Amino acid sequence: MSPVNRVAIVGGTHGNELTGVYLIKKFLQFPSLVERSEFDTLTVLANPKAYELGRRYVETDLNRCFRTEDLENPQLVQYEQLLAKAIYRQLRASQVDFLIEIHSSTANMGLTLLLSNEHPFNLQLAAFLSNVDPSIRILKTGVAGQNGRLRDQFKFGLTIEVGPVAQGIVSARVFEKTEQLIFEILDYLAQPAQLSEAPSRFILFSAQQAVDFPRTDHGEIAGMIHPELEGADYQPIQFGHPLFLKFDGSVETYQGQGPVYPVFINESAYLEKGIAFYLATQQEIVVPSHAVENE
Amino acid sequence: MSPVNRVAIVGGTHGNELTGVYLIKKFLQFPSLVERSEFDTLTVLANPKAYELGRRYVETDLNRCFRTEDLENPQLVQYEQLLAKAIYRQLRASQVDFLIEIHSSTANMGLTLLLSNEHPFNLQLAAFLSNVDPSIRILKTGVAGQNGRLRDQFKFGLTIEVGPVAQGIVSARVFEKTEQLIFEILDYLAQPAQLSEAPSRFILFSAQQAVDFPRTDHGEIAGMIHPELEGADYQPIQFGHPLFLKFDGSVETYQGQGPVYPVFINESAYLEKGIAFYLATQQEIVVPSHAVENE
Repeated sequence: MSPVNRVAIVGGTHGNELTGVYLIKKFLQFPSLVERSEFDTLTVLANPKAYELGRRYVETDLNRCFRTEDLENPQLVQYEQLLAKAIYRQLRASQVDFLIEIHSSTANMGLTLLLSNEHPFNLQLAAFLSNVDPSIRILKTGVAGQNGRLRDQFKFGLTIEVGPVAQGIVSARVFEKTEQLIFEILDYLAQPAQLSEAPSRFILFSAQQAVDFPRTDHGEIAGMIHPELEGADYQPIQFGHPLFLKFDGSVETYQGQGPVYPVFINESAYLEKGIAFYLATQQEIVVPSHAVENE
Repeated sequence: MSPVNRVAIVGGTHGNELTGVYLIKKFLQFPSLVERSEFDTLTVLANPKAYELGRRYVETDLNRCFRTEDLENPQLVQYEQLLAKAIYRQLRASQVDFLIEIHSSTANMGLTLLLSNEHPFNLQLAAFLSNVDPSIRILKTGVAGQNGRLRDQFKFGLTIEVGPVAQGIVSARVFEKTEQLIFEILDYLAQPAQLSEAPSRFILFSAQQAVDFPRTDHGEIAGMIHPELEGADYQPIQFGHPLFLKFDGSVETYQGQGPVYPVFINESAYLEKGIAFYLATQQEIVVPSHAVENE
């Protein structure tokens, strides 16, 4: 039996990632699209004020405000800190036990899934989805629970990261493939019989290191992603691969051992965080059979 | 002889259009790239505060603040209104007589040039450049002088609009082709002998009409650019061509007579202005020979 009784679909955590905002608008207008008889579905537009302003956030990044200690800290009263508390309370009060959160990226992330954690149920779902569509990638960033992301608060769940798409626009092609993926997730959650049929292996990418842009002595950005790296997310690179083309014409290359897999290349929201891309490793994950029953 | 004695290259009029911001940063670091013995070159980062905030503007769109009556109106004291006055004074004091302004778009604009006006010198330059690179398009939006754009204040000059590129990122490919175009413009301005050799015809696209997204009764956006229109800037459409895919699954089609040429499709900054795209017409422009001498 599926352990899921109530699914939350959350979009617009970042107000200028419109794929999620518009999917939520559509689902609110046509709720039957995301309703399944096996569970309740809650649809949430997370940061409508940031959406109205056309920005990622009003005061601070909402998807860094979900650390448990921060949610319980009455001193934290920035707009998104308060909003995080309200969203968390709403989802907890509704007894949500599976989270689907929709993000988009200016990087060529295709359809990437970031799991809440490596619980066997999440792993089984990841294996199932990447078998349905082999272009889907499963990525792990940071240490689960320590980054203040909404998905960290849920035992079962995942974030969809789709790209490339500019902030502030909706690409119908990106919208439709994201919508299709959400339907596949919902159908999977509704039909636990599929669990045992799911394949038991998938590739997990794990971000190991954030890489900043080259800088001048004054901290100014001194170059850009090299044309050969542009859009090459998830493509393996080795020692000597071009990383940056500097404004003085010189090229910075990868000095480590490969293969490593760059991801979130040229994600615009990471510029202010000093991140040009992440370098990830990959490993094959073998999912325990009958994962849910054996937990 | 070239009528040009001082060229201004302006980028970052919109703080999140980083192609222009980074080109200016590069030119400030390596000024010899844009210096020519025939004229002086002034390089200006227009809105560094908006760039630092990662936004198009701080308070209002700078590139709508350059109407002559607004520049002279002491009542207008929003941040960008003041900034427009300061930039205008700086460029006038420097006796700039040719403007190159760099913008970027999330729309598939390729390399588009928007002329200050249809002065024969500007037309001759447009004809020359579109002959050097036939993929360059020449576009006219609105009525010259009435939109408060920086280029409206210059008899000689143009705006470069390059895309598609997301806001908040630099694409090396887009950066390099924009830089190359700027060098071609500077070389042309430096070598008036080329004037008489320039071809005398080019295609001018003229935006006739702004088209908004479909809306619900409450003014909410009810659909998105149709997949068949996505990225199809400058491609002719006729009666019946799909324009929008609505969230209810229905399709809105073009109801006018064609051919018309959509431009600025899915430009994210126009969402707040209620513009999904413009529809343009095209005409062949025959440039008077010896344009400058005969003026």
